[in-house]
Amino acid sequence: MVNTLFLPELREMLADHNEADLVEFCNALNPGRTAEFMEGLSNEEAWEVLQHAAPARRSEIFGYFAEERQLAMLQHHEPWQVAELVEEIPADDRVDLLQDLPDERVAEILPLLPLADRRNIQRLRAYAEETAGGLMTTEVAKLAQTLTVREALEELGRQASELETIYYLYVVDEDNMLRGIVSTRQLVSSLAKPNRTLGEMMESDVVVALVTEDQESVAEKVERYNLLAIPVVDSGRRLLGIITHDDVIDVVRDELTEDAHRIAAVAPLEDDYLRIGLFTLTWKRGLWLTILFFAALLTAFTLRSYEVELESYAWLVWFIPLIISAGGNSGSQSATLVITAMTSGEVKFSDWYLVLVRECIVSVVLGSFLALIGFGVALFIAPTVRGAFVIPFTLLSVIVCGCLCGATLPILFKRAGLDPALMSNPFVAGIVDILGIVIYINVARVLLG
Amino acid sequence: MVNTLFLPELREMLADHNEADLVEFCNALNPGRTAEFMEGLSNEEAWEVLQHAAPARRSEIFGYFAEERQLAMLQHHEPWQVAELVEEIPADDRVDLLQDLPDERVAEILPLLPLADRRNIQRLRAYAEETAGGLMTTEVAKLAQTLTVREALEELGRQASELETIYYLYVVDEDNMLRGIVSTRQLVSSLAKPNRTLGEMMESDVVVALVTEDQESVAEKVERYNLLAIPVVDSGRRLLGIITHDDVIDVVRDELTEDAHRIAAVAPLEDDYLRIGLFTLTWKRGLWLTILFFAALLTAFTLRSYEVELESYAWLVWFIPLIISAGGNSGSQSATLVITAMTSGEVKFSDWYLVLVRECIVSVVLGSFLALIGFGVALFIAPTVRGAFVIPFTLLSVIVCGCLCGATLPILFKRAGLDPALMSNPFVAGIVDILGIVIYINVARVLLG
Repeated sequence: MVNTLFLPELREMLADHNEADLVEFCNALNPGRTAEFMEGLSNEEAWEVLQHAAPARRSEIFGYFAEERQLAMLQHHEPWQVAELVEEIPADDRVDLLQDLPDERVAEILPLLPLADRRNIQRLRAYAEETAGGLMTTEVAKLAQTLTVREALEELGRQASELETIYYLYVVDEDNMLRGIVSTRQLVSSLAKPNRTLGEMMESDVVVALVTEDQESVAEKVERYNLLAIPVVDSGRRLLGIITHDDVIDVVRDELTEDAHRIAAVAPLEDDYLRIGLFTLTWKRGLWLTILFFAALLTAFTLRSYEVELESYAWLVWFIPLIISAGGNSGSQSATLVITAMTSGEVKFSDWYLVLVRECIVSVVLGSFLALIGFGVALFIAPTVRGAFVIPFTLLSVIVCGCLCGATLPILFKRAGLDPALMSNPFVAGIVDILGIVIYINVARVLLG
Repeated sequence: MVNTLFLPELREMLADHNEADLVEFCNALNPGRTAEFMEGLSNEEAWEVLQHAAPARRSEIFGYFAEERQLAMLQHHEPWQVAELVEEIPADDRVDLLQDLPDERVAEILPLLPLADRRNIQRLRAYAEETAGGLMTTEVAKLAQTLTVREALEELGRQASELETIYYLYVVDEDNMLRGIVSTRQLVSSLAKPNRTLGEMMESDVVVALVTEDQESVAEKVERYNLLAIPVVDSGRRLLGIITHDDVIDVVRDELTEDAHRIAAVAPLEDDYLRIGLFTLTWKRGLWLTILFFAALLTAFTLRSYEVELESYAWLVWFIPLIISAGGNSGSQSATLVITAMTSGEVKFSDWYLVLVRECIVSVVLGSFLALIGFGVALFIAPTVRGAFVIPFTLLSVIVCGCLCGATLPILFKRAGLDPALMSNPFVAGIVDILGIVIYINVARVLLG
């Protein structure tokens, strides 16, 4: 998928030290596209090309590189060159990158940064990664409420190149307390009345995130109110920074992927699948796999306790995997549907009754249908017609049990204040396995005497 | 979770026909918050409160209601009142809502709308829902390249209240061809040079979405280039509309939820879990459940073919569920990790070798560990030590097989141009079930001879 369109030309320019064309390449396209055309270059070559862009543009292009390349570049070049680049990276991204570099390297770079940036980095590093503080950037347009529309536009014009986004202006008082916001849209619409002040125009009912607030809750606010950015304040409502919409998309993606992993009984990975250490990966999978294994061990003991039945009707054994997989699969479906519906807010605890009614109906229909097919097959395999009846009755009961367990357990977990996705599909399947065996043998006992 | 803070006051205002306070309530807060405070009201009451807001604000507040309430309101009131509201709803949301109303109702409302809106709705309805055309809004700031900074700002001031977003201005020629974009940020930063023209300032290398492009691909572009909005063009590069960042968050959420459902073998639902018809829900689950059921039937036939072995060593039967669930669970973990990593672009087809190496190592470690535990238990249950050895050897092989199947199948599906999430966990588990039984009996044959 790497874009190789310009690779030969780029390599030629580098070999010829063709300054003019390299400068042109760095500036002609939009920075995202420039980064894309450099994907096929080695990190060394890309770094060399980058030196032909002015510092601000250099950091913009750099921002579109994959994280791996970014880290490699910060790791392997002259500290002063790296510091020059780091100075221009937006405050929130910069802190995330530095957090992934070895401490010795950070210690080499930090002293070369201007004091203000150094302080800013230290402050941002203090916030936990999954909170509003860990996501925010401190580059925000702060203005006084006494400014007029015209003055505000002029001030904004001066600040604009420094800021990540200028689509809301934050009105603060002398103590940096957030008083209100004015959108650039309002400002532009008010050009006809250039002497109105920000104080007169501002919306004072502002949706804010507390600096310690969990990132999931922040993302929910941004989504619910369709915001481009949300201001982050401390407990005294002093404005600390903002979180922009692009960081929110990342949060939504991360949280949903985390859910998918939990549903499959993998403790959430904090890193890319290909980059995470094998030891960590093994641990995150092994923990759950072992718990599930102990649950599954119970099936062995359960079956042993039915030794007599299984020996007198040996053909019953052949259907064991079929029955437990039918229960497990229908349970997984219910659990996944309920978990994802709770994550997106479609299903709340108060809906439990409705969920159970729906699951009952669906599972009886599905169970009856599969029971019919199962009965057809059992007629061939079982020695008597009476015996064959064991299979459909068991299938119907197991599928209904599976769906109800799958739907109920995540709701109960949610109620208990736990992440419903913890009630993973394999866990539901484990419970349904044991239930399935117990149901199976007891149905057989009743029918076969 | 419903916010009940203002409910008593609101109901009192309605009972007293307290116009002044109701108007105040509709205008004092930001519209998202106003909608939130109305959550506890009945649809009828909420509609009555809404009549106290001016049309533009009314549609803003309406935009924050849950879809169900929105549809109920459009369905049940005087057509002229509804038309007045519909006129003010952003073009993209409006079309989505009308698509969910009964045709007779739409036929009542449409004739009451101004001709331009009617045409606009008909045009947007023609695009498929999951394409750029289905997502876009037509309210976009189009300007000529000859305008100066000052003129552009004034023009924008006039248009601003009509537009969903004004953060990029799109420069078009007489034929409506997209020539370039200028961000409001650039415009504001250029206030010092009010006579520069848009043509001089604009970025002509614009990332666009084709009107027929799939929504997933559009979302990927917006995320990759960190855009606030992406212009939608036809094949002749004529500007048709824009897609804004909030619609992109919805796409990301939908696609990931769809993946989670596919992974659990549910065909993606097009509607909320609680709102989707029971017949549809049953069909979407039943289809896959039946396919998986037929796969599981094979296990019954496989076991029957090992009749002799199972009768001579009856204790082998007790471990069957344990062995197939260990294989299934480890396979699900691998499949989910690989599928989610492919969705987010972390893993590409070219990484298959690396994925397999990593899965081999992890599965051997996990398999050996669980084999050890299994051996301990088998020593208690199996009649001979030699017999007990069957369990660890089988567990190790089944877990390695499970991981490799789980990791390989989604990659192969992706290679074949199919959605890797189709290679759902239950499907992987189904394959591993049969493999597991075959491995188990053959290990037993060799060891117990």
